[in-house]
Amino acid sequence: MYRSHTNGELRLSHINKEVTLSGWVQKVRDKGFMIWVDLRDRYGITQLMLDTDRTDTAVLETAKTLGREFVIQIKGTVIERQSKNPNIPTGEIEILVSELTILNEAKTPPFTIEDKTDGGEELRMQYRYLDIRRNPVKNALIFRSKVAQEVRNFLSNEEFIEVETPYLIKSTPEGARDFVVPSRMNEGQFYALPQSPQTFKQLLMIGGMDKYFQIVKCFRDEDLRADRQPEFTQIDCEMAFVEQEDILNVFEGLTRHLLKEINGVEVEKFPRMLYDDAMRLYGNDKPDIRFGMEFGHLNEVSQHKEFGVFNNAELVIGIAVPGGNTYTRKEIDTIIKWVKRPQVGALGMIYSRCNDDGSFKSSVDKFYDHEDLAKWAKVTGAKPGDLVCVLSGDTNKVRAQLSALRMELAERLGLRKPNEFAPLWVIDFPLLELDEETGHYHAMHHPFTSPKPGQLELLETNPGDVKANAYDLVLNGNEIGGGSIRIHDKQIQATMLKHLGFSDEEAKAQFGFLMDAFEYGAPPHGGLAFGLDRLVAILGGQETIRDFIAFPKNNSGRDVMIDAPAPIDDDQLTALSLKLNLKS
Amino acid sequence: MYRSHTNGELRLSHINKEVTLSGWVQKVRDKGFMIWVDLRDRYGITQLMLDTDRTDTAVLETAKTLGREFVIQIKGTVIERQSKNPNIPTGEIEILVSELTILNEAKTPPFTIEDKTDGGEELRMQYRYLDIRRNPVKNALIFRSKVAQEVRNFLSNEEFIEVETPYLIKSTPEGARDFVVPSRMNEGQFYALPQSPQTFKQLLMIGGMDKYFQIVKCFRDEDLRADRQPEFTQIDCEMAFVEQEDILNVFEGLTRHLLKEINGVEVEKFPRMLYDDAMRLYGNDKPDIRFGMEFGHLNEVSQHKEFGVFNNAELVIGIAVPGGNTYTRKEIDTIIKWVKRPQVGALGMIYSRCNDDGSFKSSVDKFYDHEDLAKWAKVTGAKPGDLVCVLSGDTNKVRAQLSALRMELAERLGLRKPNEFAPLWVIDFPLLELDEETGHYHAMHHPFTSPKPGQLELLETNPGDVKANAYDLVLNGNEIGGGSIRIHDKQIQATMLKHLGFSDEEAKAQFGFLMDAFEYGAPPHGGLAFGLDRLVAILGGQETIRDFIAFPKNNSGRDVMIDAPAPIDDDQLTALSLKLNLKS
Repeated sequence: MYRSHTNGELRLSHINKEVTLSGWVQKVRDKGFMIWVDLRDRYGITQLMLDTDRTDTAVLETAKTLGREFVIQIKGTVIERQSKNPNIPTGEIEILVSELTILNEAKTPPFTIEDKTDGGEELRMQYRYLDIRRNPVKNALIFRSKVAQEVRNFLSNEEFIEVETPYLIKSTPEGARDFVVPSRMNEGQFYALPQSPQTFKQLLMIGGMDKYFQIVKCFRDEDLRADRQPEFTQIDCEMAFVEQEDILNVFEGLTRHLLKEINGVEVEKFPRMLYDDAMRLYGNDKPDIRFGMEFGHLNEVSQHKEFGVFNNAELVIGIAVPGGNTYTRKEIDTIIKWVKRPQVGALGMIYSRCNDDGSFKSSVDKFYDHEDLAKWAKVTGAKPGDLVCVLSGDTNKVRAQLSALRMELAERLGLRKPNEFAPLWVIDFPLLELDEETGHYHAMHHPFTSPKPGQLELLETNPGDVKANAYDLVLNGNEIGGGSIRIHDKQIQATMLKHLGFSDEEAKAQFGFLMDAFEYGAPPHGGLAFGLDRLVAILGGQETIRDFIAFPKNNSGRDVMIDAPAPIDDDQLTALSLKLNLKS
Repeated sequence: MYRSHTNGELRLSHINKEVTLSGWVQKVRDKGFMIWVDLRDRYGITQLMLDTDRTDTAVLETAKTLGREFVIQIKGTVIERQSKNPNIPTGEIEILVSELTILNEAKTPPFTIEDKTDGGEELRMQYRYLDIRRNPVKNALIFRSKVAQEVRNFLSNEEFIEVETPYLIKSTPEGARDFVVPSRMNEGQFYALPQSPQTFKQLLMIGGMDKYFQIVKCFRDEDLRADRQPEFTQIDCEMAFVEQEDILNVFEGLTRHLLKEINGVEVEKFPRMLYDDAMRLYGNDKPDIRFGMEFGHLNEVSQHKEFGVFNNAELVIGIAVPGGNTYTRKEIDTIIKWVKRPQVGALGMIYSRCNDDGSFKSSVDKFYDHEDLAKWAKVTGAKPGDLVCVLSGDTNKVRAQLSALRMELAERLGLRKPNEFAPLWVIDFPLLELDEETGHYHAMHHPFTSPKPGQLELLETNPGDVKANAYDLVLNGNEIGGGSIRIHDKQIQATMLKHLGFSDEEAKAQFGFLMDAFEYGAPPHGGLAFGLDRLVAILGGQETIRDFIAFPKNNSGRDVMIDAPAPIDDDQLTALSLKLNLKS
């Protein structure tokens, strides 16, 4: 038996107990006649002590050879500590060591195993197994496990059935971002890894499973943005005989359960916002509503003067930055520089200071008088002491720019508090999205999303105006879940696919099995999927998902620890009936 | 709202309640003036009734158009049934229908949606979404979900952390059965899908996670035996600072928990059997101990006469078939024919009838007298009325043959009772296994399994004799789990890999990251993995796993419903820097 207790367990009540402990050496303090060792495991740290009076010389000598991260086992007696450490639960006791065994030695780790480490991202990833020993990563993984378990508890109580859907499925031509898997037994043929279990969960509804969920890995072979992973985890859910309202209620319940159980936060009914309103007021379909700074619309109060920039703009919008009038000219210049970065792309920014005495001082005083600027303040909700920031341009672009500015300034102002949670449903998403490059419409959610009742006809005339039974759950400015009521009628699905540019043959080849299934009694159904990586990170008060994933890949999709992907043997290629066809 | 209640919910206490129900039409009985409809969903069946007196004519007319598997919604009043059906929970009530809406029509399904269907395996798989509507499949999936949830509850209570390990990992040359995944972003390179998360869970132990589990898909591209799947699910577990005894206790606890919670069966401490004993007494490393019929060793009591077959055999073994003396000569001939099938491969079978009067009648009376046959009966434990069946030959072969015969006869005698559970630990497995074809030894469990203390030296001289810290959990003649204490010392791991035929370079290329990790303070650790598909099937009293998998693949690894795998576009191949290299 390697241990009688963990290193997080012993208290004053254990005094005089003989114990056996195992763990890693966190720290050794050698005073010559006395040695203290901090022994660490997942559960905590326990202080060991050895001294020349009471400890066998051989044991003492062994202790002197200990280095950081050595794995040891000790036997000893729990004694009360002279100088207690109130910062750790075991801080009132220490162990007087009688036996010490080195279970495994350790080379000096390439970075310190401390909460604040000296290791950079790349090094930490290469030695991820050491990185995981650090509290922030270890706790993130434990946190994730707890969230997943709470999700399962809640959904199981709601009579959801967890069903495993296959990982080896079929590639679809529009699935250009599918990872594929050559089949040895079926020459020249490939499986694909699922980007989501979408069609399978719909088939489960047609199969009468009624309420399905699964915490499941999904795969997408796309160029990775900063915080994306080629494999990611979804909480995937589907329900039959439901309307949108039923689904919102269940998953609002799930989210409320998590906020309560995990974060100890009670949240009232989640607000709902139309997609159009979200875009109008926040320039964004996932607004962070922990703070205000809603967009004010300035066309009316800014296009009546000689200022060509505004007059020529499709949209003039602004936000009031609380207390922003304290910004120096230099600080404002930094902000202007920030919005002009290529990532944001604004051509400039107009501002108006709202002085405490009710006067205004703007960067366009040449064009606008006090009365104008008072209207700007009113429209943006600015109070004395605030700063009004105004952008203008084409609607879509300027909304995105002002949204970015709003988030950036809120961040700087500390308004994005990690321990405050503001969930929000965004509903009535458009069914289709125009691809500006090709001029074609594609499904904003996916091709199985149902249009709002009575809007099917609009598909012919104003496809961009058709609204869908689609909804996103937003938490603190992040989309944590999204879903829709699905089409369950073969004819509507066929119409939909036609509008998305599928020929009958293509539709049949790719979704034939689903279209067939619709003919055998498909119930009305709909669902939602949460991104678990993101959800866990946000509940954990973090913006980045990487520490909540045990073995993440880097931005090139590589696992630098195991050095994958890697070339494979020619024999293996031959067995798969493949040849390399390198471009370079 | 599609329903106020499910179809399994209404009772006498709901009489006079106005309800809304939705579901599938299971059956329509049209008596002209009265129509009964059985409405089905996941939760049960509720009887609807309409009659000319009380139902609107239009509603009645709609009801007359209903076919099997139509999806409908009704409103109506709960009334007491005239002739009650005690076989279903809702059998005391029916619904007097006032409104009826057809939500979706259905073509006649290709097989009946009944517990005993008229559909064959292939048809059921093609229309799996209809097959899932049948109780046996639906209940199997619900059962599986419950088992998985109980596993998680138990392990979470034991402070195990569920950690997701990556699916896109690295292929290893001996991983000839790896499924590989070409990487678009890393030209000419491939990921592999994990055959198990083995190395990752060991890294998690080195990372201090202490207790890990995961219910996880694994992949193996091998020619499929009858009841194997290219993707299968494991309950994968690992613990640090443990000895074999700790692991056996925890997972015995888990299995006992499942038997109790799922099957309502209380099982005492699981027996343990040495691998060598299992092979000697049952010819099998996963003996079914729900019944006896242990092997009797007959060399001593059969090789003293002139019977050449036995005299020339390395091993002569027999079993006593309880009550087997009632078999007719013709029945015994069938058994002899059975053992001579190529799948079993015996050259013949000798038998001895144990008559009720204490006399014997054997097929070799020419060679053996009453005294000999009495010894055979004694050695095999045969009683009057039994039949002793004896096989002979090379040890490995004859053990396998007699094991097969033992299982077959037990099956015929009804001794393999699906609701009886006999778990068993088989321990002290050999470390290595001789590949008869190549003459090389390979790891019986995997290359990370540790030899028994002090046996490392035997590797040089008698590699086949080295025993490992490896164990299997056997339930009713099936291996449901297996594991080992791992090597955690770099030097021992290197020695081990050398003995398995890895060059230093190969070892470094494939397992370098693990060997490196061993140098930074690897704790002693070990673990176990359960095969969930098999475990669930056995707990569910079934021998075949297929109905416990929502969307299984056939013996060619194909999903016949979605028709995967399938060819992919040339564009997709080009993007992956691949070309087909077909053999035909």
